[in-house]
Amino acid sequence: MIHIAITAGGTSEPIDGVRKITNKSTGALGWHCLLAVLEYFDKQNRTDVEIYYILTENAVHKPLHNKQQEKIHFIYVSDAKSVYETVDKLTQSVPIDFFIHAMAVSDFTFSYATDINSLANEIFLLTKEKNKNVSVNDIEKILNAPKMVYSEGKKIPSEKKLLMGLAKTQKVISVIKRNNVNTFLVGFKLLKSATEVQLMAAAQKLTETNNCNMVFANDASELSLHEHTGLVIRKGQIIDRPIGKKQIAKSIVYNMFLNKKSD
Amino acid sequence: MIHIAITAGGTSEPIDGVRKITNKSTGALGWHCLLAVLEYFDKQNRTDVEIYYILTENAVHKPLHNKQQEKIHFIYVSDAKSVYETVDKLTQSVPIDFFIHAMAVSDFTFSYATDINSLANEIFLLTKEKNKNVSVNDIEKILNAPKMVYSEGKKIPSEKKLLMGLAKTQKVISVIKRNNVNTFLVGFKLLKSATEVQLMAAAQKLTETNNCNMVFANDASELSLHEHTGLVIRKGQIIDRPIGKKQIAKSIVYNMFLNKKSD
Repeated sequence: MIHIAITAGGTSEPIDGVRKITNKSTGALGWHCLLAVLEYFDKQNRTDVEIYYILTENAVHKPLHNKQQEKIHFIYVSDAKSVYETVDKLTQSVPIDFFIHAMAVSDFTFSYATDINSLANEIFLLTKEKNKNVSVNDIEKILNAPKMVYSEGKKIPSEKKLLMGLAKTQKVISVIKRNNVNTFLVGFKLLKSATEVQLMAAAQKLTETNNCNMVFANDASELSLHEHTGLVIRKGQIIDRPIGKKQIAKSIVYNMFLNKKSD
Repeated sequence: MIHIAITAGGTSEPIDGVRKITNKSTGALGWHCLLAVLEYFDKQNRTDVEIYYILTENAVHKPLHNKQQEKIHFIYVSDAKSVYETVDKLTQSVPIDFFIHAMAVSDFTFSYATDINSLANEIFLLTKEKNKNVSVNDIEKILNAPKMVYSEGKKIPSEKKLLMGLAKTQKVISVIKRNNVNTFLVGFKLLKSATEVQLMAAAQKLTETNNCNMVFANDASELSLHEHTGLVIRKGQIIDRPIGKKQIAKSIVYNMFLNKKSD
């Protein structure tokens, strides 16, 4: 049995009960990867595959044939934390052969909201109290965790000038090979207004940090459905420049199965 | 000819080229208001209606009959600024009789992103420079517009502890009656974990500030499709407690047409 995991869509980080931080991802690329995997096994008349499709609520999700549906476990997630926990658990309990990590997981999550006047007051009082001996570190401490913050779950009032503190999320991708070094890991890197050299460098960094076997690197200005393009990168080399989400997905899946043995 | 404007969906405030601040709104309530208006005119065999349906890209939008479609101008918007400009222009150029402002327009928009260390440093240098004479106002100035910010349109780096400054957006609802005092304005108020008294108070404030003729006030914990409920409020009185989005929309539209004459 071959076990394949695919993540798709963009996470949502709740700010309060109503607002949230999201991103552009629609989950379309992940969905096309799923279809490409299904097609690959169909063509070979193979049924020895089990797919774990981890998606966010707003991610593309279209009807499939019953026969296809049977092979897939759909696992819904919401924020970065839920993705981390899901992937950590899955990669510890199932021997994943291929992991296509196409989801746009938020790098940061909501930490607190305060208003500028309250925060300035708190820092001002500190400078009075400490007189000349206030340090950068003292100020950082306040900026990390001010006393006056709007309480969690309550809608933040809109009358004041606000500041939002953001906390880093745990990197989901880092856990995949740490839990199972035999997984073939496909990472994704999205930059904005980047040159090809910058895309290559970012892909290299992603590869080294997380032990990726392949990376798809692309630029946010080139995301449209038919003209979406980017670089399929393996061992520091560009191995393909597919155009269109369907073609990108096929290239990723094809190259993944092709290269598994040589790793 | 009767002119009706409806806004629907939730705005998106871009943070960088990839991330954004959004909210829970799906545009379903606005859509049901549109259907209720169409049904109202259908039943009376009247065709003397022109509808301006202002919606965000992620808002619900289902197929309609050609005959219905003909009566509607669909106008797409994205962030709070684009809604403000669209509504301002529309209400100046078209004599809107009824305005159902169901859209969840963001109260704040992205102003800047910086990291906590840089910001702490900037404040620290100020305290050194000004010695004992640093004021709350001096600190506020920095918090409003720090020197070191991540440049617009570029994806914000994920390695550091970040702070996001938010700016208030212009209130869309305030422009409607200012441009045309004869418009019958239906405002919407969404609170989180609020009591009925708090909902009533918030509706009253919305009414007074923006000269609303009717308000639908609801709580975020009661938003599901079939059980969505809330209060239809007019002149400080609860005139209906409809249950379900379809019923809410019908109640709003019915009461709106019923009460126009008495205003």
